[in-house]
Parts: sequence; structure tokens; C-alpha cells
Amino acid sequence: MNPIIKNMTQHVSVRDFKDETLSQETKNELLLAAQSGSTSNFVQAFSIIEITDKTLRNELADITVSSPHVKKADTFYVFVADLHRQATILEKHHQSLDSLKNMESLFVSTIDTTIAAENMAIAAESMGLGICFVGSIRNNIQQVADLLQLPELTVPLFGMTIGVPGIKNAPKPRMPKKNYVSKNAYDADSFNDLSEYDTTIKEYYANRETRKQDATWSDKNLDFFKEIHRPDVAEFVKNQGFTLE
Amino acid sequence: MNPIIKNMTQHVSVRDFKDETLSQETKNELLLAAQSGSTSNFVQAFSIIEITDKTLRNELADITVSSPHVKKADTFYVFVADLHRQATILEKHHQSLDSLKNMESLFVSTIDTTIAAENMAIAAESMGLGICFVGSIRNNIQQVADLLQLPELTVPLFGMTIGVPGIKNAPKPRMPKKNYVSKNAYDADSFNDLSEYDTTIKEYYANRETRKQDATWSDKNLDFFKEIHRPDVAEFVKNQGFTLE
Repeated sequence: MNPIIKNMTQHVSVRDFKDETLSQETKNELLLAAQSGSTSNFVQAFSIIEITDKTLRNELADITVSSPHVKKADTFYVFVADLHRQATILEKHHQSLDSLKNMESLFVSTIDTTIAAENMAIAAESMGLGICFVGSIRNNIQQVADLLQLPELTVPLFGMTIGVPGIKNAPKPRMPKKNYVSKNAYDADSFNDLSEYDTTIKEYYANRETRKQDATWSDKNLDFFKEIHRPDVAEFVKNQGFTLE
Repeated sequence: MNPIIKNMTQHVSVRDFKDETLSQETKNELLLAAQSGSTSNFVQAFSIIEITDKTLRNELADITVSSPHVKKADTFYVFVADLHRQATILEKHHQSLDSLKNMESLFVSTIDTTIAAENMAIAAESMGLGICFVGSIRNNIQQVADLLQLPELTVPLFGMTIGVPGIKNAPKPRMPKKNYVSKNAYDADSFNDLSEYDTTIKEYYANRETRKQDATWSDKNLDFFKEIHRPDVAEFVKNQGFTLE
């Protein structure tokens, strides 16, 4: 296994950062890595907003609730799925924006943005930095859009904290191959045969250093999805101009 | 710049592959890299289907139309946004599936799946392999789902061809920082000030080795979004059980 892949297999989300500052050169490399990935039809449908203002950072951290590292991390980026550039170009030429508003275009911009973010994550980890995706900005996605003054056809998908890692957990065991890889057709029987993996996760939670618990992977999912999360996201997306059609 | 980031900046989509076979060990490393990335609340909401059957591969390639490399590449994976495991767990415990069906959960599974795919892409390129995201499976997303026997709460987002690169183009120039990075708020004026980048892209298309053309980035986007693409995607997603609410 080469060092790049080895590095990827060591990934853990880091939520505890040392009080060290990233240089502008480091940030420039992260931003370059982010924009170097694949992009559907070269549309580059994402923007990245760095949150350097303390007040704004705290307001965003309060929205995330469970993510105090948003306040403390040296660097915090918000990743925005973004078709506003295309809207501006089309409007300038008196063209309809309908092609930007459908579900297909929302997928394109979501996928482009996530590719960019994961590139940044791997680049950061390759420098020994730690990262955490912060999906919890979607706890109040409208407020995030207001705070960042997002125009139509943009969606703030997630944030990313980046810094020099303090406490770093061991990687969590992922699903066995039989639970997520199949050949030529979806293999529901194999994917849903989670007993082996449930045992692995139960042992992992029972034996890890901190926040020990008694739960399988199935238990955790059952518990998590017992309630509906972020029911306002669809309405927000529609307010931004996407028709979800 | 370290070799990992350097490698990322050299990314180009590869659509021409040599007639060489990837070992199972190589594929296992790619699949391991794919599952090692971040995942929202550890839900791991993706599956990967390898297409080894020749007939099936050709049927999928015909759907993609513009992607003949789907027929020829040694390895072809389809990436599926997947909340079916969670549905099975919830059903077993007589719980409602509503929490899986909303827009928030569709974002979660789309983002998880794309993180996995980009990890695989970077892992493949780190071994000297070439990759191409194949979004054009969405040309007929219902047929893809039928061919792969996808159950409810799954969406085939894109494929990925992987192999030993034949012809490899030079990387395309990406947007200047002022067009995709801002501080503390969305900067529409700066993001839409595309004149410099339009010139860069015009020169790139005029001078590249093959398929020379006379177009700016704005021209290309104007042309591409003059028509509505894949208007059936939303209906398909709803048929799969997502409410888009």
C-alpha cells in the first residue's frame, strides 16, 4: 500500500485542535487542491467561504450546537454548492434559468462541491493537519445563508474545520466489503447481513478510550433515524430557486 | 508542495485506457480507500457496484452515450447513494422510514457517496491509474436502477471508469481564487468577474492538442445550460422513495 492510500486509511475526524496557525501558503495549497478535482462538464459549481471574523464564526458555531471545534479551529471553511455564476451568465444573455433549477443541476452542484471538499480534506491530512466535516451548519441552513449573504441557486452544504490535531481518536472500523460492494447488481441480502459488523462495532464502542457505549451499528442507526432531522432543508433549497423537479 | 497535493493538481479525467488489467489487490485498495473517508454520523450511506458482466457493461455504456470508455476501461464501478440498509433496520423494528426520505437524508447520502468516490479517485491516481467520473449514467437513471436491481432509497449517482491511462490530456486551467474563494460572505461581484478566466480558457481551447475550439468558460456554460438536462431525475428520485420534502 502506497503512502497516499495508507494516509487515507488513517482518516479520523478531528474535533480537538492545537492553538497553531495555518500559514497563507498552506491555505493556498488547500484551496488549490480543492479546485483540482473532477467537475461535471467543467462547471466548477462550488464556492468556498473562509470564516475569519470572530463574531461570525461564533454565530455559525452556535448553529452547529454539537461542534464547539468550529469556534476553536484555526481555519473554518463553508462549502457552497453554487450555480449562481451560471445564473449570472444566462441572465446576461436573457436566457431562462430553468436548466439550473432542476434536480439534476442540484446533484451536479452537490457532487462538484463534495469532490472539492474531499480533495481539501485529503490535502490537509497529507500535511499532518486534522479536519472535520461540519454538516451541522444545516441545523439552521436559512440562517447560515443569511449570515453569508448567499444569492439564489446556492446551498451551504457543510463546513470544514482544519487545524493542527490535538487529541486524535483511532479510526472507526468500517463495514466489511460484503456490506457495501457487489458485482453487477445490488445485493440486498449481503448488504443487509450486518451481524458480523454489528459485533465489530459493539466491541469497538465497548473498548475505545473515551465515550464508551453499548451499541451495535444497527442500534446507532435505529436510534439516529427514529427522529426526522432538519425538516426545513427542502424548503430552504426551494427558496434558493431550486424546484426539486 | 508535498507529493500528494502535487498529484492532486495533476488530475485530469482519462477516457483512453490501455488494455491492462487491475489486480484484485489493487481493487481492494481502491475499495478500502473509498470507505475510509468522512461519513455523516457514521451512516456510511453508499454502495459500490462493480460491473464485470460484458453485456451489462455495454448496456450501461449505451446509456452514457458520450462515454465509450465505459465499454473499454478495465474497471467500472457504479456509486449508489444508499439508505436501504437503514430502511431495513428501521422496518425490522417497525419504525417509520420518514427520516430517511427527506431532502436532508438525500443530501447526506449524496455527500457520503461522493466523498467515497473522490477517495477512490485519488487512491487510483496515486497508483498511476486514470479515472473518469461518469455522470452520464443519469441520462437514463431509471434504466440504470432497473439493470442494477436497485431497491428503495437508493440513487445511482455516477459511475467511475478506472484503468491504466493511454492518452492523457494536460490539466485544464481552473478558476482564479477570486472567482471561488471569499471571506466571511459570498462575494458575488468578485465571483462573477470572469473576464480574466474567460481569456485564460479561450487561450486554452485555442491552443490545446486536440478538439481545438473558440470559446470562453462563460460561452461554454451559456451553451451547456441553454437546454434542460435530465428532466426525469427528480421523478426517479421520488420513485425511489425520497419525498424531496
